[in-house]
Amino acid sequence: MNVLAICAHPDDAEIWCGGTLAKYALRGDKVTIAISTNGEVGSPTLPKEEIAEIRRKEAQEAADIIGAELIWMGYPDEFLFDREETRLTFIDVMRQAQADVVLTHYPQDLYNPDHTITGQIANDVAIMTTVPNIVTNHPPIAKIPVVYFIETLAGLNFHPEEYVDITDTIEIKQKMLAKHESQVGDWLKDQYGSNAAEMVEIISRFRGIQSGVRYAEGFIRAKAYPRNITGSLLP
Amino acid sequence: MNVLAICAHPDDAEIWCGGTLAKYALRGDKVTIAISTNGEVGSPTLPKEEIAEIRRKEAQEAADIIGAELIWMGYPDEFLFDREETRLTFIDVMRQAQADVVLTHYPQDLYNPDHTITGQIANDVAIMTTVPNIVTNHPPIAKIPVVYFIETLAGLNFHPEEYVDITDTIEIKQKMLAKHESQVGDWLKDQYGSNAAEMVEIISRFRGIQSGVRYAEGFIRAKAYPRNITGSLLP
Amino acid sequence: MNVLAICAHPDDAEIWCGGTLAKYALRGDKVTIAISTNGEVGSPTLPKEEIAEIRRKEAQEAADIIGAELIWMGYPDEFLFDREETRLTFIDVMRQAQADVVLTHYPQDLYNPDHTITGQIANDVAIMTTVPNIVTNHPPIAKIPVVYFIETLAGLNFHPEEYVDITDTIEIKQKMLAKHESQVGDWLKDQYGSNAAEMVEIISRFRGIQSGVRYAEGFIRAKAYPRNITGSLLP
Amino acid sequence: MNVLAICAHPDDAEIWCGGTLAKYALRGDKVTIAISTNGEVGSPTLPKEEIAEIRRKEAQEAADIIGAELIWMGYPDEFLFDREETRLTFIDVMRQAQADVVLTHYPQDLYNPDHTITGQIANDVAIMTTVPNIVTNHPPIAKIPVVYFIETLAGLNFHPEEYVDITDTIEIKQKMLAKHESQVGDWLKDQYGSNAAEMVEIISRFRGIQSGVRYAEGFIRAKAYPRNITGSLLP
Amino acid sequence: MNVLAICAHPDDAEIWCGGTLAKYALRGDKVTIAISTNGEVGSPTLPKEEIAEIRRKEAQEAADIIGAELIWMGYPDEFLFDREETRLTFIDVMRQAQADVVLTHYPQDLYNPDHTITGQIANDVAIMTTVPNIVTNHPPIAKIPVVYFIETLAGLNFHPEEYVDITDTIEIKQKMLAKHESQVGDWLKDQYGSNAAEMVEIISRFRGIQSGVRYAEGFIRAKAYPRNITGSLLP
Amino acid sequence: MNVLAICAHPDDAEIWCGGTLAKYALRGDKVTIAISTNGEVGSPTLPKEEIAEIRRKEAQEAADIIGAELIWMGYPDEFLFDREETRLTFIDVMRQAQADVVLTHYPQDLYNPDHTITGQIANDVAIMTTVPNIVTNHPPIAKIPVVYFIETLAGLNFHPEEYVDITDTIEIKQKMLAKHESQVGDWLKDQYGSNAAEMVEIISRFRGIQSGVRYAEGFIRAKAYPRNITGSLLP
Repeated sequence: MNVLAICAHPDDAEIWCGGTLAKYALRGDKVTIAISTNGEVGSPTLPKEEIAEIRRKEAQEAADIIGAELIWMGYPDEFLFDREETRLTFIDVMRQAQADVVLTHYPQDLYNPDHTITGQIANDVAIMTTVPNIVTNHPPIAKIPVVYFIETLAGLNFHPEEYVDITDTIEIKQKMLAKHESQVGDWLKDQYGSNAAEMVEIISRFRGIQSGVRYAEGFIRAKAYPRNITGSLLP
Repeated sequence: MNVLAICAHPDDAEIWCGGTLAKYALRGDKVTIAISTNGEVGSPTLPKEEIAEIRRKEAQEAADIIGAELIWMGYPDEFLFDREETRLTFIDVMRQAQADVVLTHYPQDLYNPDHTITGQIANDVAIMTTVPNIVTNHPPIAKIPVVYFIETLAGLNFHPEEYVDITDTIEIKQKMLAKHESQVGDWLKDQYGSNAAEMVEIISRFRGIQSGVRYAEGFIRAKAYPRNITGSLLP
Repeated sequence: MNVLAICAHPDDAEIWCGGTLAKYALRGDKVTIAISTNGEVGSPTLPKEEIAEIRRKEAQEAADIIGAELIWMGYPDEFLFDREETRLTFIDVMRQAQADVVLTHYPQDLYNPDHTITGQIANDVAIMTTVPNIVTNHPPIAKIPVVYFIETLAGLNFHPEEYVDITDTIEIKQKMLAKHESQVGDWLKDQYGSNAAEMVEIISRFRGIQSGVRYAEGFIRAKAYPRNITGSLLP
Repeated sequence: MNVLAICAHPDDAEIWCGGTLAKYALRGDKVTIAISTNGEVGSPTLPKEEIAEIRRKEAQEAADIIGAELIWMGYPDEFLFDREETRLTFIDVMRQAQADVVLTHYPQDLYNPDHTITGQIANDVAIMTTVPNIVTNHPPIAKIPVVYFIETLAGLNFHPEEYVDITDTIEIKQKMLAKHESQVGDWLKDQYGSNAAEMVEIISRFRGIQSGVRYAEGFIRAKAYPRNITGSLLP
Repeated sequence: MNVLAICAHPDDAEIWCGGTLAKYALRGDKVTIAISTNGEVGSPTLPKEEIAEIRRKEAQEAADIIGAELIWMGYPDEFLFDREETRLTFIDVMRQAQADVVLTHYPQDLYNPDHTITGQIANDVAIMTTVPNIVTNHPPIAKIPVVYFIETLAGLNFHPEEYVDITDTIEIKQKMLAKHESQVGDWLKDQYGSNAAEMVEIISRFRGIQSGVRYAEGFIRAKAYPRNITGSLLP
Repeated sequence: MNVLAICAHPDDAEIWCGGTLAKYALRGDKVTIAISTNGEVGSPTLPKEEIAEIRRKEAQEAADIIGAELIWMGYPDEFLFDREETRLTFIDVMRQAQADVVLTHYPQDLYNPDHTITGQIANDVAIMTTVPNIVTNHPPIAKIPVVYFIETLAGLNFHPEEYVDITDTIEIKQKMLAKHESQVGDWLKDQYGSNAAEMVEIISRFRGIQSGVRYAEGFIRAKAYPRNITGSLLP
């Protein structure tokens, strides 16, 4: 099976579904991580191009840990919009990944518009990936992928409907996250009150408590025709 | 695995989760169907005892089709209440069935109080089934069962979160339902506008359309500690 | 009364509110069907212009059955966006139709962005139709129209609040739908699991079961000031 | 048509649906007001029997204004419970009123258990009113009544889905309310911050603003099989 | 100000609002903890009376840490019901505590009926505490208390609307919890997957992350007339 | 503390949070009112530039009453869109106001897209105000502001979670509103059924009844990381 995580910023996939991606990879699924923006505002001191370049390398190293392919879409951080060109790019990414399953942001997240819009476009274009009359670099795929939404920042406005036990992959998840060294410093902690590693520990444990395991990640399947399914494609 | 459907009236289990129960049975799980009330108001002409007796036989014949055990709880139809004695009976039924999974009515159903209260008690007492200090006829079981809610009447106020493909068992489901001959006549159709067989056909197809198969049944897992789980126990 | 259905693709109005439109028409209301996109991706083999032209003719023939006027807005299929020019066109369409009532897609539909955005713009601009300082081809109308949302694809994420009995017009609805011959083939069935005629039959029956009639269509009135009303403008 | 308002305390029907009841009455429908409790705690100084007797007279005088029949059920104020005997009484009241429509409290109201439980029982037993095997003083009626929920106290937790224009009957509503002289004094105002007449004025105006008329009352139809309908039975 | 936490079992108040209660106490408010059931099923080995007695002592020691008064209501564990006698007891407890604020379980919790029913009765009777015609051991109080709902087990089905920073009192909370030694062993951990101390650590941190502090507790104010307020009575 | 109300049209801030802004101002907080559009469609007779100019003067006079600064953003009325340039302007406005708190429209409001989009952008960009790599006219601020949503038109689709008592400032609010003389005439009343002064009176009283005071305004805090807080920043 081919799994595509399409997230807004470098480190988002690691934070919200890294344990699940590792689990897919470990059982032999092909995993692709696509990042819609270039993360260029993610530093209090470095100029845009420099921090973007650093974060791309970090994302690549994190993806390498689980043998995932990285697709760097490169839209300007904090300024992604739902336009024809963007939709076509998202379609092309899904075709390139030959995605059976797409993990993406929850469109009702109030945290950040890159998240909201990435999730919205990813869900919106899923039905277009098979359509011959929509031409992109890669040919149409055969089957519309199923879409799962990952958790919002700090779980606000989000109740998981499905949980994945990541007890066996939490360490891989933390290692992947640790590759994002540029995001570990005091700046984010000052802004946000917690750093990512700590957030990941607490939230994965919280979802674990909710679902009877040590560490878990939570998801909601998009209730959208015709990509609503019987059973589940989560690992 | 041991599966317990605990429903309000004879024919409820068949209508809302008969295809799923057949699927469990076909793959070798032990299935029990418990019916909380005696169905004694289910006739426009027969006296209470007589129609109750008929319906008990019909329920037994329907259960026999999939080799399920039938537990007849016998509370008065339309007058089930949440009392100490009732709770203890529900606990004992779960212990008798050694239930790993319980399928029951959705407590937010506005259709019928027997449905609402059966679903509420079934969910409420799940955590008590393992407790030594609560003594019933059968000994405590080892693990709190997971609870799934079945659909409301006509799907009102209900959005499934999980679907089971019952294309292979829809015929068994219809055969089980057909055993409830006393409920097939014009009376119910006059009251309700549709008879059960027709409702089952339409609703199973509708849930199938929603989930990309021919026939399906829809469920919501109780989001209740500690019976919320990773993955799914549906077949 | 003047009724405007403003939908995303040729055949959407027929599928979701065709029975209701027929009922309006039969009682003498003036019905207009506006289609926001040109349906140009709706074929696995034909080029865009060709299939768009075919679908326009099909839409016209379907509208003719109930004597409805057709407004072909012609935006590119799957790529409708909320822009100034689009809003002005939607306003002008409502003014041209002199709409008292607008039936349109539900903005919380997750199925397709053309649906979501058509519904959102239609609701958004309803209040602008009466405003003199917003100039379009047709003059402002006197009264802000009332907006009703039609059902989502497969009824996902949608609970009707009002139902229209279409038992008397289901045949007309099916005839209108049958005019969309280009959409009947195996391609859509392969993609979607069901074809439109079958979906219409099942969903109309399902809504009928929910509301005590044979066939029904379901709606939600936009809870939006000042187009929220006492009573109902549905037929 | 026969209309039954079944509310918890004397003055509840007047406050939440008095304008609608007056409208039904004016157009010739038969209106019955049933009050489940005796209102015996509704005084800071009078003993229970005395205030109950006063309130019964006030309720009768209010009902007389619109020619409504009053059914005094007499359960102890603040201590209504969902029991077999209570259900049977509610069934009998609906049969006595030969109700086509029932207006009652919203079961999700958090204000007062008499409200919640009255609304819950009224909705629960609606389907039992036609059943021959449930015997009460009055014979079964022919058709299950449709249930509408009236507004909660101060509109908390309540969004109307249907509105009735009561501009023409607001004066009758206020006159009916004024008959409840025992509830007008400072005690309630001290407890609640507003007296009933003022609340009625403000809330009816607020619902009017929401629905484009001067005064309105808001309702939600019970989404419960088989008493969900096409169209509306509100006046 | 007088604060009353009214919870189902010994240790519930500590787990869900112990940090908030400590904060009230530290600033000089009078705190009362009432426990509706006797906790007699809370042991895999001890007989009912013995474990109930132990838990009462533990609850008293925990309350003593913050100088709170303990009210032991003593209903049978897992078998609390909404009856006249129970309501009167709850009213009397609120009068005894002269409560301005009540913290109690969330009635939509699906975890345990003692929780649900304690929360429901506590909210229901709040309006009865001031009524002279409802006589209990203690005289009526002057003002209807405001009700806040505490979190559900594992936060399932619960989104806090207000948060209290308990960073300064988390240690007191943990100390109070530690007094419940009978609940610390392996039995609960086996049943539930986590023990209480660990759950408290994780959930308090999770709510802290959500609200920008180190440790927090989350609440929802009952939206119920006339105990909905401007501002907040949380510390 | 610095408070920024960022609303769509001249008079919106007055109508929905004028009493709260006055309260902030009276206690010494610095208040800024930013208006995203120029209100140029707000007249049935005057040309766009003229009415826009008049409304700007009216907005200034209203702001002057409470000593608030006015920021006139000047986007075309009814045609605000979420674009890079717009986002940067919103960021700059928040930086100019050095906002600790932002009051803005509720993004789920169905009334008017200027409202929806203003609220959405305001919430979206709050997290960008502190980011050095996003350069606007004013330098980054130190702390991400907290966002509160104001009420929708006529309170449709909106349940306040927090209330502010504006009994002491209702007169100031009405005076501020009265400055918008161009909006008082019959045109709006004809369109909308109520004029603004009347709406403000009724809705403020309604929210007062809901929260136990004479006049109140209702709010929902954005549940968005990391601007969700313990306690409240409302006055």
